[in-house]
Amino acid sequence: MHMVNGFDPTRPAALGPVERDLIARRDASMGAAYRLFYERPLHLVRGEGVLLHDADGDDYLDAYNNVPVVGHANERVRRAVDRQLATLSTHTRYLTDEVVRYAERLTALFPAPLDQAVFVCTGSEAVDLALRVARTVTGRTGVVVTRHAYHGTTTAAAEISPSLGPHNPIPPHVALVDAPDSVRDDPATAADAFGRRIDAAVAELEGRGVELAALVVDSVLSSDGLQTHPRTVLEVAAERARAHGALYLADEVQSGFGRTGAQWWGFQRTGVVPDLAVVGKPMGNGIPIAALVARHDLLDAFGTNVRYFNTFGGNAVSIAAATAVLDELEERELLQHSEDLGAELLAAARDLTREDPGVAEVRGAGLFLAVELVGAGDKPDPRRAAGVVNAMRERRVLISASGTYDNVLKIRPPLVFPASAAPRLLDTLRESLLATRSSARLHR
Amino acid sequence: MHMVNGFDPTRPAALGPVERDLIARRDASMGAAYRLFYERPLHLVRGEGVLLHDADGDDYLDAYNNVPVVGHANERVRRAVDRQLATLSTHTRYLTDEVVRYAERLTALFPAPLDQAVFVCTGSEAVDLALRVARTVTGRTGVVVTRHAYHGTTTAAAEISPSLGPHNPIPPHVALVDAPDSVRDDPATAADAFGRRIDAAVAELEGRGVELAALVVDSVLSSDGLQTHPRTVLEVAAERARAHGALYLADEVQSGFGRTGAQWWGFQRTGVVPDLAVVGKPMGNGIPIAALVARHDLLDAFGTNVRYFNTFGGNAVSIAAATAVLDELEERELLQHSEDLGAELLAAARDLTREDPGVAEVRGAGLFLAVELVGAGDKPDPRRAAGVVNAMRERRVLISASGTYDNVLKIRPPLVFPASAAPRLLDTLRESLLATRSSARLHR
Repeated sequence: MHMVNGFDPTRPAALGPVERDLIARRDASMGAAYRLFYERPLHLVRGEGVLLHDADGDDYLDAYNNVPVVGHANERVRRAVDRQLATLSTHTRYLTDEVVRYAERLTALFPAPLDQAVFVCTGSEAVDLALRVARTVTGRTGVVVTRHAYHGTTTAAAEISPSLGPHNPIPPHVALVDAPDSVRDDPATAADAFGRRIDAAVAELEGRGVELAALVVDSVLSSDGLQTHPRTVLEVAAERARAHGALYLADEVQSGFGRTGAQWWGFQRTGVVPDLAVVGKPMGNGIPIAALVARHDLLDAFGTNVRYFNTFGGNAVSIAAATAVLDELEERELLQHSEDLGAELLAAARDLTREDPGVAEVRGAGLFLAVELVGAGDKPDPRRAAGVVNAMRERRVLISASGTYDNVLKIRPPLVFPASAAPRLLDTLRESLLATRSSARLHR
Repeated sequence: MHMVNGFDPTRPAALGPVERDLIARRDASMGAAYRLFYERPLHLVRGEGVLLHDADGDDYLDAYNNVPVVGHANERVRRAVDRQLATLSTHTRYLTDEVVRYAERLTALFPAPLDQAVFVCTGSEAVDLALRVARTVTGRTGVVVTRHAYHGTTTAAAEISPSLGPHNPIPPHVALVDAPDSVRDDPATAADAFGRRIDAAVAELEGRGVELAALVVDSVLSSDGLQTHPRTVLEVAAERARAHGALYLADEVQSGFGRTGAQWWGFQRTGVVPDLAVVGKPMGNGIPIAALVARHDLLDAFGTNVRYFNTFGGNAVSIAAATAVLDELEERELLQHSEDLGAELLAAARDLTREDPGVAEVRGAGLFLAVELVGAGDKPDPRRAAGVVNAMRERRVLISASGTYDNVLKIRPPLVFPASAAPRLLDTLRESLLATRSSARLHR
C-alpha cells in the first residue's frame, strides 16, 4: 500500500545486513500494518536536542518531529518524570494535586469559553472522545472533514481520516470537502467557496438522512498540505458549521503548543474560537498524553450521564512530563522563537526556491513550513517531493512530505531548533532541490 | 449517575477543607465526566510497593490496583525509563532495536498461532484496533459481549461496554448475553447454557441483518463479577463463535501478565486459544502502553491494505518500562507468587466468611479475588458491598466492588503484594464484613 515517504520493502535499498535483519525480525514480530520512513530506513540509537544518531554513529538534523517539541532527551522532562516515578503514579479516581494544577494551567491557555480539560493518552483518543461528546450533546451523527484529513486511528477517528487511503472506509455519516488550496484557489473567493462546499456536504449528509454533529478541522490543515492562509477560511467554516446547528472541533494535535508561532493554538491565527479542541503529540515531549479541551456546558451535558475514565489518562507521570513541557515552552520563550525563526526560515526558503519553476509556493506558520512542488500547470509533483525527502535524508537532514497530492514538503522541527542549525537545513534543502531538478521535467 | 464505589458529590462526606477545595477546583477544570472513588475520596501524595500515602501522612494498603503490578514507585521501572529518556524516545517509523526485541519477547509468551504484536497506548485503543482488524478481515460488523462487559472507552469500545450504564448506547450490531454466574448457574449445564445464549445472540443479530465478526470476552469476566469457574465455559464460547464463522477476541487487559496465577494469560486457565488478544493496564506499571497480539494471517489481511500508526504506540520509553516489568515478573517469580499467595488468600477468605450468611461465594484466580454478597434467595446485596468497600477504606485498606449487580468485592493487589501484608488485608476484610452484618438484613 502506498504511503508518502514510506519504505517499500519490495524495492531494493542499500541497507546493511544489521538493518536487513532487524527489518525481517520486525516484520515477523510486529506484522504487516507497520510502515517505515524513507527509501533507506533510519536505524536510530540516540537523540539529543535536534540531533538523532544512527547505529553507524552518524548524526541527523531533525527538522521533522513535532513530538520532542522541547528537544530529544530533554533534561527537564527527564527529571520531572523521574521525580514523579519515585513518588506516585496513579489515576484520576484518587484526588491528586498535580493533575488539577495542570488542568487549570492548560485551560488558562485557551480563550473563553474553552474552560475544561479531559485527559487521554493519544490524539486519536482525544478526537474519539470529542466525537462522542459532540454526538451525545447534539443527538446527531454527521461529521464533515476535508478530503485529505487525518484525525487518528481509532475506529471513529479513522472514519474521518480519508488520508489513510482507499482501503480505509468512509461511512455514510461522514462527508468530505475539498480543502482550501492556496496554489489553486482564487484568494478573493476561497473562503466563500469553502463555505459553499461545507453547505453542499451538509446537504449530501441530509440526503442520506444524517444531520451534522460536528465540523472537524485541523487548524492548519496539515495533511491537506499545510494550508496556512488565507486565515479567513476557517472563520467561514466555523460560521457555516454553527449555521447548521453543529459544533466546530479544532484538531490542534499538530498545530498546538506554539507550533504555528507566537500563539499557543493554531486556531488563534484566525478569528475562530472552537467549541471543542483536541491537543496531543508534543504535549508530553513523547510521554503519552493528550487532551480534549471543551466548553463546560458540553462536558456537563455529556458527563452528567456518561462517565469517562481513561486508566492512564492524566496519570501523574504523564502530567509531570506535560508540566515540564509547559515550563520549557514558557521559560525558554519558545513560542516567540517559533514565530521569529519560523519567519526567517520561511523567507530564506522562499529566497532559495525563487528560481525553481517546480516550486509553486512556500508557506507556513511558525516552525511549520511547506514547500509545494509542481510540474506544468501547477500539476502536483509527488515524485519530486519523495525525491527531495530522500535526498535530504541521504544528506542527514530529516523532513517528510504530505498533502492531498503527496507533493508538499513538510518541515516541522522541534521548537528548540536553534538558529545555528538553519544553514544546515537550508543548504541541504537547496542541494536536494537542485539534485531533483531533473525529475521536475514539466515546468510551469 | 450511579457508579459502583463512586463518590457522590451530592451527599455530605467528612472531607477536610483541603480536599473540598481540591474537588471544587477539579470539577471546575476537569468537568462532569470524571468520578472519584469512595464515599470519602482519597487524596494521595506518595506510593511505594503496596502502600499509598495520603496528604495527612496516613498509609493505605493497596489491594486494588493492578496497574502498578510490580509495585508503586518500582525502582527498576524508574531506572529503565530514566535511562531511555536520556537516550532516545521516538516512534516506530524509524528502526530501533528495543521495540523489536520486546515484540519478540511478548509474542513468545503467547501460544501459537498468536505470533505478532501491535503496540498502542491503552487497552481501549487495543480493543478498538482488534475490532477494526476483526471487521476488516471478516467483512462483518457484529459483536457479542456479556451483559455487564467493560472493554474500553473509545466509541467502538464503549459500544461493547454495557457496564458503562444506561446512557451509554449499545448499537444494533452489538448483542448481549448473560455471563456465566457461578452463584446462580447449575454447574453441570452452565457451559452449554452459555453456548446456547451465544447462539441466540447470533440469531438476534442475524434478525437485524448483522453477521457476527467477533465474540469478545474478558478471560475472567472481571466486570461480570469475576467468573473464574467453571473454566470450560470459555471453551464452549470460543467453539460457538468459530462455528458462526467469527473470531474469538480475549480481553486480557485485566487478566494478563500473571494476574490469574502461574500462567501469563487468563485464557490459559482454559483450553481456549484466542484469535486475537489485547493486553494493557499492568504492561508498563503505569507508563501508558498496551498491545494487540494476533495471528499473523489476520494482521496480514488487515495491514497489507491498511496501515496503522500510533505515534506513541511502541515508543522507546514505554517499551523500556514494559521490558522492566517483564524482567521483574520473571526474575522475582511473581507469577508463581500470584498463584501461591492467591491460593492462600482465597482459602483464608473462604475461612473467614464461612459463618457469614451474606457471603454467597468467594472465588478467584491468582491475585484476583471476588467475594459475592447476597441477601435471601441469593438476591444480590450491592448496598453491603459498597458498605464493605468504604468500611475497608476507613480502615485504610483499598479494594473496590464490581459485578452485574454491583455486589461483588474486587480484591486485586499489585503482584508484589507480600505474604506479610495478608493479615492486614484479611483482618480488615473480616472487621468490615462484621461491621456491615447489620445491613445484611435478609439472610439466605
